[in-house]
Amino acid sequence: MDAAHIIRAKRDGRALTDEEIRWFLSSYTADEVAEEQASALLMAIFFQGMDDRELDTWTGAMIASGDRLDLRAVSRPTVDKHSTGGVGDKISLPLCPLVAACGAAVPQLSGRGLGHTGGTLDKMESIAGWRAHLSPQEIVDQLDRIGAVICAAGAGLAPADRRLYALRDVTGTVESIPLIASSIMSKKLAEGTSALVLDVKVGSGAFMKDVGSARRLAETMVRLGTAEGVPTTAVMSRMDTPLGRACGNGLEVTESVEVLAGGGPADVVELTVALAREMLALVGLHDADPGAVLAAGDALPVWRALVAAQGGDPDAPLLVSTDVRAVRAQRSGVVTMLEALAIGLAAWRLGAGRARKEHPVSPTAGVVCLAKVGETVEEGQPVLELHVDDPDRLDAAMEALEGAITIGDEPPPPEPLVIDILRP
Amino acid sequence: MDAAHIIRAKRDGRALTDEEIRWFLSSYTADEVAEEQASALLMAIFFQGMDDRELDTWTGAMIASGDRLDLRAVSRPTVDKHSTGGVGDKISLPLCPLVAACGAAVPQLSGRGLGHTGGTLDKMESIAGWRAHLSPQEIVDQLDRIGAVICAAGAGLAPADRRLYALRDVTGTVESIPLIASSIMSKKLAEGTSALVLDVKVGSGAFMKDVGSARRLAETMVRLGTAEGVPTTAVMSRMDTPLGRACGNGLEVTESVEVLAGGGPADVVELTVALAREMLALVGLHDADPGAVLAAGDALPVWRALVAAQGGDPDAPLLVSTDVRAVRAQRSGVVTMLEALAIGLAAWRLGAGRARKEHPVSPTAGVVCLAKVGETVEEGQPVLELHVDDPDRLDAAMEALEGAITIGDEPPPPEPLVIDILRP
Repeated sequence: MDAAHIIRAKRDGRALTDEEIRWFLSSYTADEVAEEQASALLMAIFFQGMDDRELDTWTGAMIASGDRLDLRAVSRPTVDKHSTGGVGDKISLPLCPLVAACGAAVPQLSGRGLGHTGGTLDKMESIAGWRAHLSPQEIVDQLDRIGAVICAAGAGLAPADRRLYALRDVTGTVESIPLIASSIMSKKLAEGTSALVLDVKVGSGAFMKDVGSARRLAETMVRLGTAEGVPTTAVMSRMDTPLGRACGNGLEVTESVEVLAGGGPADVVELTVALAREMLALVGLHDADPGAVLAAGDALPVWRALVAAQGGDPDAPLLVSTDVRAVRAQRSGVVTMLEALAIGLAAWRLGAGRARKEHPVSPTAGVVCLAKVGETVEEGQPVLELHVDDPDRLDAAMEALEGAITIGDEPPPPEPLVIDILRP
Repeated sequence: MDAAHIIRAKRDGRALTDEEIRWFLSSYTADEVAEEQASALLMAIFFQGMDDRELDTWTGAMIASGDRLDLRAVSRPTVDKHSTGGVGDKISLPLCPLVAACGAAVPQLSGRGLGHTGGTLDKMESIAGWRAHLSPQEIVDQLDRIGAVICAAGAGLAPADRRLYALRDVTGTVESIPLIASSIMSKKLAEGTSALVLDVKVGSGAFMKDVGSARRLAETMVRLGTAEGVPTTAVMSRMDTPLGRACGNGLEVTESVEVLAGGGPADVVELTVALAREMLALVGLHDADPGAVLAAGDALPVWRALVAAQGGDPDAPLLVSTDVRAVRAQRSGVVTMLEALAIGLAAWRLGAGRARKEHPVSPTAGVVCLAKVGETVEEGQPVLELHVDDPDRLDAAMEALEGAITIGDEPPPPEPLVIDILRP
């Protein structure tokens, strides 16, 4: 086997053999294929793609590069959710306890945020004392006892993906459907879940800007998961404007607790219930009524148990920022757009996100949308609230918000939050 | 400037700005852009190409990465030749003294062979004592005095190309016309010649297998050289069967001396004279008659002076191999094909070439074509002669020659050696 030969084959549009894919990825993980050869292959894949068989083998080889969690000792059926990332996307926080309250176990192994969409672990860590790192045994025990875990994916899961992901970031090879699909699915399948629901975001604030590419990604991942024996459903949902009102770590925890208590923004409730319904259906819990469970506040005790089990105090108040600035409506009318990308970037610049993975994030910084799309505002009324501890960050955040708010005379035509659902 | 941003731009088909190209190449040379980023950009260029303005800037940046020889002190007009590589291609050896004998100066800065086509320096080094390394001052002095230099291109010339070439080799990005053209032209322009003739080989034994891609490469290089102020002509010549009869380092020196003495194979003479004519025309020496000069043996004294000036003894006999084996005609008839690639590979396996750049080559090993295409042979008559010191190498060489000789009833239709000439 020869790396340059494999790169040229893919470059020239030939499907790689299973042996070539396995040799390349295992040699790369063993430092026997150089970074520059891996990046050349990734760029060739960007242009030439991979067929279904290649992608199954590629994903399998990424999983085989590390450990695979064994959740068979968990007495409930396991089902997880993954989101491709959106602004204000705190859905995992209410969803995980809700699905647990309905009888399944949710092994939510997450990452940290990089860029304008936040990471689930960053949000949870705004709860003082809460710890993200659990051992495999702790994960199994907590799933068995509470039905819900939110924790860091260990470095031993799909290490080839970890290295390829970092390489893709610096070599301009992120935006490739087979590479995105295999990266997400190798991590999720390595965590040992028996079923999976994907929230594939579409829109100006999402990684996938158009429905066509989002659908191709969704179909690819549903097929991949199902081929690996893990029934997978993809929910395609809109991401043009933030989900809910809160964008920022602690702010999103607070909003999630409101949803768990039976309140909270309608869009967060809608998507949480829609995803819960798909997760429960995949593991055969067809009688559960997640909408009723959420409205009755019956998932809140699971949330409190999860926080406590991982060292947090569910009753401790969250930190709040020292400074809050309003962004006001420049005219009276109906809010027709709040740009997710701009608001995500503003929250990021206020301190909610990080530019490099070793940077810390602020638990308090962020943006709250006091008015949402379709709501009426008067001139001078606050539309956004900027939460910040370091007022020096305000200018850069305000700059990101230039043109982010559109106010018109007529309410915009209603757009469904869930665009489509692709089942196995 | 950001490397990943530049890679993505090229990947998505955008022309890079001059600033982006210069920044990327100078940062790469300064080790501030990583190998994996350079290889990703090379692969993106493989797919998306470069327009004329990008390619001019790219080539200029490669030249600017190092020194440029200053040959202005040479009293004669300077003109060089470059060949894209062919089996039995010893043309530089008679050509360089011939053009000098006609009044120009030829700064033939060369490389070593890698793969089935030999390197000019490897051939010259079969002359005992001859040294390939000259200082810039020695080059200028010898050009002024003798009009001919064949020597190693110093490491200071186009160092960015040196690194990119090694990178392309291991990352499957060799076969790209803009990358090939800029690699050749940056080295040739850095050597300071005032005019340039390119021998672009086409055929089964050449890097470019078809006339269309060879023509695109030739046109690209002619345009590039001319844009840089160095008038450039490209001669497109056939490379399906070896040039001349000898393939191997010392064997080719012997054949070259025959040509310089006014004899030698007709195809070597034809191509040598054709290239000399173009070189002399580019520097305005229209009255010279290189065919007559060569036939009269008047270039031989220049050859002898060149060998002696660089430490060799032009009268010393060359080493010969300890073992010579014949490959015989399996039937009587006319030779219709001698495959250049197979014969080049056989010579390489006998010891004439190297698999890795640190390996030595044999001065004596190689293949001599006793019969050439179009010549009549009797069954059992030797067609090829394999020269070797290590008989263990014979089996691998014989394997390469499987199917290399075709003998038929009718002579093949004559094909012109020179396909086309592209002038500035």
